[in-house]
Amino acid sequence: MLAIQKLDPTKFVPAFGILCQYLYPNKDITTTPFGSMWCLIEPGKSSAAHNHHEGEIFIIVQGNGVINVNDESSAVEPGDVIYLPPLSTHVLQNISSTDILRFLSVYWEDMPLLQEQIIQQSARERAMLPERVLVTATPPTPNGDLHLGHLSGPYLGADIYTRYLRLRGVDVCYISGVDDHQSYVELKGQQVSLTPQQVADQFGDAMVQTLEAATIIPDLVARPRASRHHIPFVQHFFTTLYTNDKLVAKDVDQLYCATCSMYLFEAHVVGRCPHCNAGAAGNACEDCGRPNDCIDLVDPRCRYCGGTPERRSTRRLYFPLSQYRTELEEYYQHVSMNAHMRILCDKMLTDGLPDIAVTHYSSWGIPVPAPAFADQRLYVWFEMAPGYLAATQEALGGSPLGDDWRLFWNDASRTVQFFGFDNGYFHAVLFPALFMAYDPSIKPASCFATNEFYRLDGAKFSTSRMHAIWGRPLLDMVPADIVRFYLSYDRPETQQTNFTLADFQSVVERELVGSWQGWLHEMHQTVREEFGGKVPEAGGWSDDHRRFYQYLKWTTDEIAAAYQDVAFSPQRATRLLCELVRTARRFNRAERHLRDSSTQHARRRTAVALEVLAAKTLALLASPIMPTFAQTLWADLGYQAVPLVWEDTLSFVPSGQQVAEAMVTAFPDLDPALLERFA
Amino acid sequence: MLAIQKLDPTKFVPAFGILCQYLYPNKDITTTPFGSMWCLIEPGKSSAAHNHHEGEIFIIVQGNGVINVNDESSAVEPGDVIYLPPLSTHVLQNISSTDILRFLSVYWEDMPLLQEQIIQQSARERAMLPERVLVTATPPTPNGDLHLGHLSGPYLGADIYTRYLRLRGVDVCYISGVDDHQSYVELKGQQVSLTPQQVADQFGDAMVQTLEAATIIPDLVARPRASRHHIPFVQHFFTTLYTNDKLVAKDVDQLYCATCSMYLFEAHVVGRCPHCNAGAAGNACEDCGRPNDCIDLVDPRCRYCGGTPERRSTRRLYFPLSQYRTELEEYYQHVSMNAHMRILCDKMLTDGLPDIAVTHYSSWGIPVPAPAFADQRLYVWFEMAPGYLAATQEALGGSPLGDDWRLFWNDASRTVQFFGFDNGYFHAVLFPALFMAYDPSIKPASCFATNEFYRLDGAKFSTSRMHAIWGRPLLDMVPADIVRFYLSYDRPETQQTNFTLADFQSVVERELVGSWQGWLHEMHQTVREEFGGKVPEAGGWSDDHRRFYQYLKWTTDEIAAAYQDVAFSPQRATRLLCELVRTARRFNRAERHLRDSSTQHARRRTAVALEVLAAKTLALLASPIMPTFAQTLWADLGYQAVPLVWEDTLSFVPSGQQVAEAMVTAFPDLDPALLERFA
Repeated sequence: MLAIQKLDPTKFVPAFGILCQYLYPNKDITTTPFGSMWCLIEPGKSSAAHNHHEGEIFIIVQGNGVINVNDESSAVEPGDVIYLPPLSTHVLQNISSTDILRFLSVYWEDMPLLQEQIIQQSARERAMLPERVLVTATPPTPNGDLHLGHLSGPYLGADIYTRYLRLRGVDVCYISGVDDHQSYVELKGQQVSLTPQQVADQFGDAMVQTLEAATIIPDLVARPRASRHHIPFVQHFFTTLYTNDKLVAKDVDQLYCATCSMYLFEAHVVGRCPHCNAGAAGNACEDCGRPNDCIDLVDPRCRYCGGTPERRSTRRLYFPLSQYRTELEEYYQHVSMNAHMRILCDKMLTDGLPDIAVTHYSSWGIPVPAPAFADQRLYVWFEMAPGYLAATQEALGGSPLGDDWRLFWNDASRTVQFFGFDNGYFHAVLFPALFMAYDPSIKPASCFATNEFYRLDGAKFSTSRMHAIWGRPLLDMVPADIVRFYLSYDRPETQQTNFTLADFQSVVERELVGSWQGWLHEMHQTVREEFGGKVPEAGGWSDDHRRFYQYLKWTTDEIAAAYQDVAFSPQRATRLLCELVRTARRFNRAERHLRDSSTQHARRRTAVALEVLAAKTLALLASPIMPTFAQTLWADLGYQAVPLVWEDTLSFVPSGQQVAEAMVTAFPDLDPALLERFA
Repeated sequence: MLAIQKLDPTKFVPAFGILCQYLYPNKDITTTPFGSMWCLIEPGKSSAAHNHHEGEIFIIVQGNGVINVNDESSAVEPGDVIYLPPLSTHVLQNISSTDILRFLSVYWEDMPLLQEQIIQQSARERAMLPERVLVTATPPTPNGDLHLGHLSGPYLGADIYTRYLRLRGVDVCYISGVDDHQSYVELKGQQVSLTPQQVADQFGDAMVQTLEAATIIPDLVARPRASRHHIPFVQHFFTTLYTNDKLVAKDVDQLYCATCSMYLFEAHVVGRCPHCNAGAAGNACEDCGRPNDCIDLVDPRCRYCGGTPERRSTRRLYFPLSQYRTELEEYYQHVSMNAHMRILCDKMLTDGLPDIAVTHYSSWGIPVPAPAFADQRLYVWFEMAPGYLAATQEALGGSPLGDDWRLFWNDASRTVQFFGFDNGYFHAVLFPALFMAYDPSIKPASCFATNEFYRLDGAKFSTSRMHAIWGRPLLDMVPADIVRFYLSYDRPETQQTNFTLADFQSVVERELVGSWQGWLHEMHQTVREEFGGKVPEAGGWSDDHRRFYQYLKWTTDEIAAAYQDVAFSPQRATRLLCELVRTARRFNRAERHLRDSSTQHARRRTAVALEVLAAKTLALLASPIMPTFAQTLWADLGYQAVPLVWEDTLSFVPSGQQVAEAMVTAFPDLDPALLERFA
């Protein structure tokens, strides 16, 4: 049977954004080791940007186009054959406005080729160290001190990431702040009979101290109402948008509580989210991460009196997000983010971008610097976008309305933003769009480093519900490094995790007090007893020595990868550190036998030199998470110079270097009163 | 200052087995990035074989020699410059019997070069899969059933290794046996009023059943007294040695208990080891692993009456180990073994190899087939050497005195011997020397896969002291795979480990019942709910997908390495498996968000295809340790064909393949009666 398939317009079906006639394999001929189809792109159209693990070639047969493979473009014409490696993202555009473009696609699965591709791509990704990075962690609301839920998320994450980059010699600036103008501050003030300013100052101060107690040290914790930079810059930013017609005045209904005589938004109103139906406050839903306009809340109630609010028509300023749809869509293709965030961005685009109210009737917040709206205040999440720029400016020591901040918000720099998923919409949609409106040359965030909710005994940490373990009292009883270790180990990165004191205690005791401390003391004792406290010079190598060195190298590479923004995971880093310690201790026990032999002295020296190298590697790799431990261990190993110095080469601790007289590194047993204190 | 160092015979010092004059760096010139020295080898002498992590060159200046680098040799003469890569083992021999050989050595540390070398060497090591392998596990003494200490060591280890090799298509034969003729069998018989034969049969049968219950299935469990092969071959082996004058008759004192009217050896006598002073029985010490001749025991006592034995002169046959010193020394350079074993071998050689008695006055054991010694029996550890050959012959189905066994004991095959460290001397010294005496063309073991003692609640497992958890009752209450998993997880590989029921329960519940089962059910549910039970075809790839695939590939390579004899570690394999499951579950949670989006369907398919691939990978990688679990999971994934098929390429489970209607794979909760049963 002669098997011929005709080019047949009736057999073309839509796929990959174009039209395709599938050729092979088919029901008659099932054995081709490749797939193949005719593809047709109508005038002016493009295939959808996509990738896959198969290799593929395009053979252009008719028409003219432009092919784009991994952001590289070229004109193509009949006769051209284009190779698309596995996983490459490709688009073919028909540049003619009158004629079709027709090509043959042949694709095949080749797993070894795919693996090669993946290895190369990952090696490139790992080798990529940016020159300059701005790190931000969402300014928290000062309606209470920081709890472990806060710490475990953006603040510790950003601190670890910053310390890692510094260790690698990157020019990095870490900014955070206190979100003074949140309506929750006003709410808290009403509850405790303080002015919002008093609440913001008091808890803002406490937060700064708690961060310090946790050795979380941003370059700047911006205090909006104390800053010379913040309010002037925010008002300037608003004015720029306003005068350039980037904001739209709208007559809209707003919720008003007649009983309490106030307009309701954010903290002042509770109801159910119009998107996901979860319980939500005004303007944004913590659960699905999406915005609302308060009047669209299901069953809204006044937070203070519980009454059903009425609607009053007001004239307010809105930011029309939908005007930035194309730019945002383009932007998302190049931002590093996880699946949860990607879905949020997709949904926002698919459902249509809303207009966002940027002014409210309120007595708390930055006054709107426009005569027609002078009796309103700026929406606090609108304020945060310029707030990040102002904080950058303040951290750099520039003048309040100066341009220094652009050093970190341009193409030569990366901005990595740490925030909880519940702040996802602001960072991924509102802020980038506001930046585009203010100045399209601003480069918005390159990476969204999000975390999920941390739970306490099964329920969400919550300041307003007082369901929390506060950072400060825990840090008063337990060294910061231990808290930082456990919050990393249990960090809610891609899924919610659950804090329990029992697990905290058991992990710390098993890993740090037991395993880490046990091994380090054995290592130190070995150097003192067998080599008089001087690090030996490596001599002969056994296969086990070679394998251990290779393991150290692998661990270094993996932990470095876990500290990079694209796959940032302190959780993975801590687990690898624990495994490093376990493996080193195993190595200690296995190699210890060599000490009894006169003929194996050269190998014994190598074993001990390797074990000391493992301790040095531990100090380096742990230092972003446990800076104090790392410096102590560094000094224990006889290094005079602090800070630690990163190296990719895993060089031995210099032979002859005298280790400390007595090992200082120690993890104290946990205070037995801990459980009672927090029960 | 002109710095010139003269060649100066008075400055030569011994190092590396030759004479060296150190040149650079020195106290005046400290900054050379290399070291250098003159080296001088006297006529007929060689440098000691050694290696180091520095690169090195030799520049031959005077004389003639032969250089050997990693077992490759070449003649060298003045003017030759030889490059020695990091870690290469090298020897330079002066072949002249009259003239010196002089050369300049220059060496330098280059850590990137070292890393390159290590990566290459490890890649070669990992790629090396033997064609044919004989696996042996020391025949246990049938004076009781097998306890967890036995199982965790040689038997399970050899079974896992065998299953792994089979999965990789290697021609492998796994033999073990029952050591009927141990004096401990006689001792047990006296205690329970049975004949030694009855004891050996009864416990031998029990042992075979226990192995089966643990799905430990050697190709042959040799039963010496039931076998057609064993006794004839052992006697033939003895006769060959005897008639070729490989054995020496000596008139020596032997311990004799006048009260009990018997000669004392092995089980019949207790005292303290002449080498390490630990409590020891006759002939070998469990603690330091070294042999004794009973009369050299410190403070010997009769096991039965406790009395101090007298000495009687007897004429017995000895095997003079010291005659095999050079061959053994050469042999050890190419055997894969850990540091503990290497030290044992070194010590045996350094202290001088003793003569080993191979006949005893006894009524239990194989009669000595030599008229002059017909009233004696063969030493049971002498018997074991030919016993391994006979068992190979029996497993192959050859005739009792045939030559088929040579298929596995020649250069084209590898023998990997699993035994506890306390049997180290027999396997590493006595057996290889006996083989050399019998037939130098026999290739002895290529790898000693040893384990250390397993402890129970802090003290050694011991059949004779009844301090043990017996395999059988535990296997009656807990599925074999769970027992195999935990014994692997906690395996005493390079250090003693400690079994506690509490840890057994907690690890099994946390890892298998919680983590493994939890994830597998989520994975299965995903395929059923989102794809109607059909494995989806991979579509678009995100960076997270690429990283997860790379992680699967890395895990596969690492676990394969942990199953290879050179770095055999089921402990590492199980820990990597647990991490694989943890990572896959994390991936499931992170990617699950994609299911809610219409635009991300192509990526969602990839995520689920990858998750199913992770489950397939788990089945394959776990199968040597948990064969039943692996087959069930394999079938759950819709594979009809059993057995599992190894692949390096990590190919997707075929898209469209229908997974099982309901997930069969399950780890039952542990029986709550477990703790009481074994308390």
